[in-house]
Amino acid sequence: MAEIKEILPDFPSGPLSNYRKQASFDWRNMAVVIDTEERLKFKHAIWKAMEEDPTFTHSVKDKDSSLDEIRNRTFEKALKVREIIPDTGFDFRTRAETSSVLGQYDWSVSLRYAILQSFFSNAIRGAGTKGHYKYVEAAEKQQIYGCVCMTEIGHGTNIRGLRTKATYVPSTQKFILNTPDFQAAKCWAGNLGKTANFAYVMAQLYTPDGVCHGLHGFVVPIRDSQLNTLPGVIIGDMGPKAGLNGLDNGFMMFNNYEIPKESLLNKNGDVTAEGTYVSPFKDPSKKFGASLGNLSGARVAITSLCSASLCNAVTIAIRYSAIRKQFGNPGSNEEMPIIEYQLQQWRLFPHLSAAYVLKYFSSVLFDNLMSFALSQFDSDMNQEVRAAWGMEIHAVSSSAKPLAGWLAQTAIQDVREACGGHGYLQCAGISRLRDDNDAFLTFEGENNVLMQQTSNWLINLWNDSKREVIIQKSKLGSLTFLLKAEQRLNNTFQPGTVEALLKPKVILGIYKWLVCYLLRLTAEKYQTLLAASDQDNFLAKNESQVFFARTLSLAYIEHFMLETFHNQLCQRPGLPEDIKNVLNKLFLLYGLWSLEKQHLGTLYEGGYFKGPKPSKLIRNAILGLCEDLKPEAVALVDSIAPTDFVLNSVLGASDGQVYKRLEQAMSQYPDSFAKSSNWSEFASRLKSKL
Amino acid sequence: MAEIKEILPDFPSGPLSNYRKQASFDWRNMAVVIDTEERLKFKHAIWKAMEEDPTFTHSVKDKDSSLDEIRNRTFEKALKVREIIPDTGFDFRTRAETSSVLGQYDWSVSLRYAILQSFFSNAIRGAGTKGHYKYVEAAEKQQIYGCVCMTEIGHGTNIRGLRTKATYVPSTQKFILNTPDFQAAKCWAGNLGKTANFAYVMAQLYTPDGVCHGLHGFVVPIRDSQLNTLPGVIIGDMGPKAGLNGLDNGFMMFNNYEIPKESLLNKNGDVTAEGTYVSPFKDPSKKFGASLGNLSGARVAITSLCSASLCNAVTIAIRYSAIRKQFGNPGSNEEMPIIEYQLQQWRLFPHLSAAYVLKYFSSVLFDNLMSFALSQFDSDMNQEVRAAWGMEIHAVSSSAKPLAGWLAQTAIQDVREACGGHGYLQCAGISRLRDDNDAFLTFEGENNVLMQQTSNWLINLWNDSKREVIIQKSKLGSLTFLLKAEQRLNNTFQPGTVEALLKPKVILGIYKWLVCYLLRLTAEKYQTLLAASDQDNFLAKNESQVFFARTLSLAYIEHFMLETFHNQLCQRPGLPEDIKNVLNKLFLLYGLWSLEKQHLGTLYEGGYFKGPKPSKLIRNAILGLCEDLKPEAVALVDSIAPTDFVLNSVLGASDGQVYKRLEQAMSQYPDSFAKSSNWSEFASRLKSKL
Repeated sequence: MAEIKEILPDFPSGPLSNYRKQASFDWRNMAVVIDTEERLKFKHAIWKAMEEDPTFTHSVKDKDSSLDEIRNRTFEKALKVREIIPDTGFDFRTRAETSSVLGQYDWSVSLRYAILQSFFSNAIRGAGTKGHYKYVEAAEKQQIYGCVCMTEIGHGTNIRGLRTKATYVPSTQKFILNTPDFQAAKCWAGNLGKTANFAYVMAQLYTPDGVCHGLHGFVVPIRDSQLNTLPGVIIGDMGPKAGLNGLDNGFMMFNNYEIPKESLLNKNGDVTAEGTYVSPFKDPSKKFGASLGNLSGARVAITSLCSASLCNAVTIAIRYSAIRKQFGNPGSNEEMPIIEYQLQQWRLFPHLSAAYVLKYFSSVLFDNLMSFALSQFDSDMNQEVRAAWGMEIHAVSSSAKPLAGWLAQTAIQDVREACGGHGYLQCAGISRLRDDNDAFLTFEGENNVLMQQTSNWLINLWNDSKREVIIQKSKLGSLTFLLKAEQRLNNTFQPGTVEALLKPKVILGIYKWLVCYLLRLTAEKYQTLLAASDQDNFLAKNESQVFFARTLSLAYIEHFMLETFHNQLCQRPGLPEDIKNVLNKLFLLYGLWSLEKQHLGTLYEGGYFKGPKPSKLIRNAILGLCEDLKPEAVALVDSIAPTDFVLNSVLGASDGQVYKRLEQAMSQYPDSFAKSSNWSEFASRLKSKL
Repeated sequence: MAEIKEILPDFPSGPLSNYRKQASFDWRNMAVVIDTEERLKFKHAIWKAMEEDPTFTHSVKDKDSSLDEIRNRTFEKALKVREIIPDTGFDFRTRAETSSVLGQYDWSVSLRYAILQSFFSNAIRGAGTKGHYKYVEAAEKQQIYGCVCMTEIGHGTNIRGLRTKATYVPSTQKFILNTPDFQAAKCWAGNLGKTANFAYVMAQLYTPDGVCHGLHGFVVPIRDSQLNTLPGVIIGDMGPKAGLNGLDNGFMMFNNYEIPKESLLNKNGDVTAEGTYVSPFKDPSKKFGASLGNLSGARVAITSLCSASLCNAVTIAIRYSAIRKQFGNPGSNEEMPIIEYQLQQWRLFPHLSAAYVLKYFSSVLFDNLMSFALSQFDSDMNQEVRAAWGMEIHAVSSSAKPLAGWLAQTAIQDVREACGGHGYLQCAGISRLRDDNDAFLTFEGENNVLMQQTSNWLINLWNDSKREVIIQKSKLGSLTFLLKAEQRLNNTFQPGTVEALLKPKVILGIYKWLVCYLLRLTAEKYQTLLAASDQDNFLAKNESQVFFARTLSLAYIEHFMLETFHNQLCQRPGLPEDIKNVLNKLFLLYGLWSLEKQHLGTLYEGGYFKGPKPSKLIRNAILGLCEDLKPEAVALVDSIAPTDFVLNSVLGASDGQVYKRLEQAMSQYPDSFAKSSNWSEFASRLKSKL
């Protein structure tokens, strides 16, 4: 613990001290519980190295620079990261935090580093064979700069619709890459716009007989050693975006561009020298699945990234709310810190609870994904069990990523408004979070489309005669709500007081009923549509989304997040009582707030709620929890906040010197006190002698 | 009508033609109905002039420029506006559309022009006397550049807390302005940062005896004819913001800065040469009210501005959704336009309905505010009636402005996500709308605090014994829900079918019950808290906001918007049937969507809804309306869209050439195909010979 105190030293005494003293728990203990000692060391080692290295100094002029400058600086930082990451003494799991740790500083740096260091290599490793490992090695040593090109202008979410062609020519033993038109141009690939010299390219493989064998990956040189694009390749930068402007998303077209036969990443399919297609897969859809590789990985990762942004956002707003005063009781001369107002508490504390629940959940999900990945080497493992495990991770991550993105998005927006006008300044650090996080909402498939993976899986399960067996075998345990679903659907709301409501079992019970109800309803709706449409599955799926499948996926993942947080964290043996007590409140607030905001109508509709009591109890309980959490809130953000250097917000610094920092930021802005460069033109129009 | 066809010519035939043909109504007729012929002429005259004047040419490099450049260009545009506004043939009411018309092109230009042309003058006119009119005249001729300084770093929403001091010194017959510390620095004033040479400054007036007489306005020279700041004045630019970066929001501090006695805007209070304070008001709180002037004006204006952004946003998303194809029935070779998907319809069409309802409502509200302003010259008008009218406008605008801001904010966010990855590009035009609109959420007081003006008024009314008389006399008619409130509270939901539900009277009936219920509940809660807290009004107000007063204000304004749209537009005599029919659907969708999204729980809680039917009917009705509106949607946005030049979105142009425009935008970005300026450094690190 002495060591932890070095990593997390005492905060300077100042305007936040008063609220810090009110907390009922030790903020350092909480940090260790929610993050582990190992990870805290790792994070802070990186953050400290960044703070000490001038490469990472924040520019006060960021938005005031050309895209070229911003991108150059970001890439310099991304290249530098490799040198500052602690080399030894940290396991792979801890190292996996790197993206979040960098992202809390700057998401463009984080993504550029991830593409350089792992996206490209993972893509090659996943689809390639031994001969391709030299690219992996070179990329990981940053001897080449890689990028990953899947999405095209005309196709993103529907990945099967990609149209880049790779045609094999036996006479030259080469593939010819072609982009039929602009809609088939590769796009959105980070590092492509200005920097990558190698690309992983996904294309439709054609044999000389004109047969298309579906999507395959290729490793393709695209720029020479001077970073000029190679003949036959056109690469452009997609230009300014809503956020992530340090990332050079590019587009690329091929014009009869020849690449050697060996460029084909041939783990799942290959061509002979003569041009015959061979594949270890007989079922083309299995091959398709394999060639897409493990998409869950990216979704699980994004879940973590969103949680990191959410932590930054609530830190800013809660610290500022403890400092900012406005109005006060007319009987008093003092104005009141805005954190004292019910409205402000209700606008912020549920997001704080979401930050805790999501942070813990995304970490558990990541652990699980890792165990799953390692299980491929476990020869004792039943393949059917492993497949079911993979499916469950797929289903969970397909709704966890959307929920995480939206939780961060709505929190950042509320934070921005709750900070008033000053929240609108870039030096507040909020708009940057919003602009960058926004990308995650459509990364890896549009959120609403993605969630259909979850609901489809649940509906199939509902109709499966072996349902109970599958639930018992579930590796993640996301299906507990389904146990005795039919009996559960007869349950109704029992608590008669707020006290009786404020029990984890009660909240989880409401959620379990809700997910069962939505699942039965959606399965029935789907069946009805199927019957009415002459078994048109496409139509039946599409028409059972709104108010049914979509809500089902959300309720399912909310329940699983809550249950995981409760079972694996709040109930963890040996957890100190003070920590347990406040984690329990966060659990309750997140659960009740999510129910109140989205599901009251459905709970009444399905008969689980009756009369005025349930809704009134829930609302009273939320307000009570907000009041209870007021003395804890500042310490709770202290436990999950990055360092001041990383947070980079004048409103959210740990010393609470909001006004000094505002003054400093506004005065340091380079042109703050300068005249407009166009002053003489503007002055010449002034005519009055007033 | 021939003339209208010149303003609104046919769209070129192309990818959107198919959906345009499906509409059941004439889009030009709709444009005239929703906007009036006069306003359409006015708007399009301005937009045409902008398109033809190179000053207004869009830069493809906007975000890629320094703040100085962006601000200079914006100010040049703002100065130019005066020349292109049609001079004759348009009445004052039409002219009031200018801010929206400019804003749909660029909100920074719109706000800079408004500050130059009217904010400053209005402030002087409102608080000054005859001797000050020379400033008004000079400002309106742009012979001086004005700005308005109210907010300080430490006080925004709580305006009474402002701390800038103006002390009168009889020996010099001057006021001395002082800023006690940085927290009292004026801030957020547009045009202040770089350009204004005169400021309206709100300060606490002190007489030589040390007595503070409260807030007063002063007209203050702040820069000389070369735009240098005057001695005793420090002015800085607040630096980069989340949006509105064309606007030079500044901060300002005074250090023993002397201004002549005549600088005091002395309509509501003055000092004699000797330093005695005199005022026509005996009640200081009335003086305070008068010195703040008509705050409703700004709120009403912002309601319109948000509606204008909302129109831009839905135009982009709906046109793009009619073009963008993704997935399709496996039985078909064609992919399906995403507008065909239930999910996409549900994500967008409610925002389209909100755009129509809000656009019409904000226009009616503006008309009403004008009539109210003119009524001061009506000597026959009963002063009590006029005061009640002013209060009602105040209450309505205090919740209309927040609702409008949030409707635009949520629509823009949904639009961004519904456009997928390409919605993240700046050339899509969505992020700009979001960043700029975001400012309106905390302009003129933070939304949640502002809405308390509405709920306070309603609670007082509820407890007023003369309630029924006041309702009858209400000038706007926002209180119809209160008629026979007690009987109304015994009503319950009656419709047994979707058809029976889809009647305006039914939707308005649900809302009327809801507002009554929330009002009674809030009034009771407030009374209980008051009794329990020994009449602590401050506490009782604060603790009755969440789930009570806040929801009340929202439901009240939603109801009034709906009722206004129905009574004054849908029921307007002589309205063509085809127009009426589709407006009615928009009315129904907006009403049901708002109820479903926010109020189902409360409707069940209060017993208006019972059993599964109400919620199921409402949800079915929403999906049915979305389906009904699919063939109308493209034509509906055609009727409210600005010109392509003004909209400036590659995804939303009226010709539907999404992919050509994307290609053009991405290729035209100046550095699109250029190497990074830092390429040699990046190339030198490449080590592999792969």
